[in-house]
Amino acid sequence: MPTDRLSATFAALSDPTRRAILARLALGETSVSELAEPFDISMPAVSKHLKVLERAGLITRGRDAQMRPCKIEVNALKEADSWLEEYRRLWEQRLDRLEDYLQTLQAEEASKGKPKKEKNRGRK
Amino acid sequence: MPTDRLSATFAALSDPTRRAILARLALGETSVSELAEPFDISMPAVSKHLKVLERAGLITRGRDAQMRPCKIEVNALKEADSWLEEYRRLWEQRLDRLEDYLQTLQAEEASKGKPKKEKNRGRK
Repeated sequence: MPTDRLSATFAALSDPTRRAILARLALGETSVSELAEPFDISMPAVSKHLKVLERAGLITRGRDAQMRPCKIEVNALKEADSWLEEYRRLWEQRLDRLEDYLQTLQAEEASKGKPKKEKNRGRK
Repeated sequence: MPTDRLSATFAALSDPTRRAILARLALGETSVSELAEPFDISMPAVSKHLKVLERAGLITRGRDAQMRPCKIEVNALKEADSWLEEYRRLWEQRLDRLEDYLQTLQAEEASKGKPKKEKNRGRK
């Protein structure tokens, strides 16, 4: 079981049903029965997923005993996003290198004075 | 066990040691023994974590049987980042609302003709 908050957040996100529940809650607060409707799983299974999300701080539930409406909480998601942000430079650097390489290729092509077009013509 | 790639990625990220391993690998390729050095865990435990990261596509390992250097792979992280991107607007909207509220407060303050400053002076 994950003990730190970030680990609990990532663990909670490691299930497609829980991610779908969050996607629904991103549109607005809703009751558990409404939330369960589109899913082909039992109410106890939905409740179990909600408990995992709640423990990870990804959702909160209202106090009304009958309704207990669910609400998404963005702070935990934001922490996960901040963690990933550190790695964003890795693929951004890769894209930069790819762009540099493409520009080098284009420059080489231009300095040759369109030899490719000639070749293509010859082949026709 | 998570079956889809995104679930496997989030599951792999739900452990502080695995996140620390990725942080080290973000600096560059390294051997397993070098990687294990700063961690107070056994080599088999490190190997187990590496297997989870490898299965999730977060790292790849070289073919050299002795070294098997580990390398971070950014694509899986990028997919997790893309998933979180959809939710970024939720906290951005919240920040916008907070900013609007602060501006309203400031405008109200300004229309009152600096009454607060007067009060502070009186207290001194």
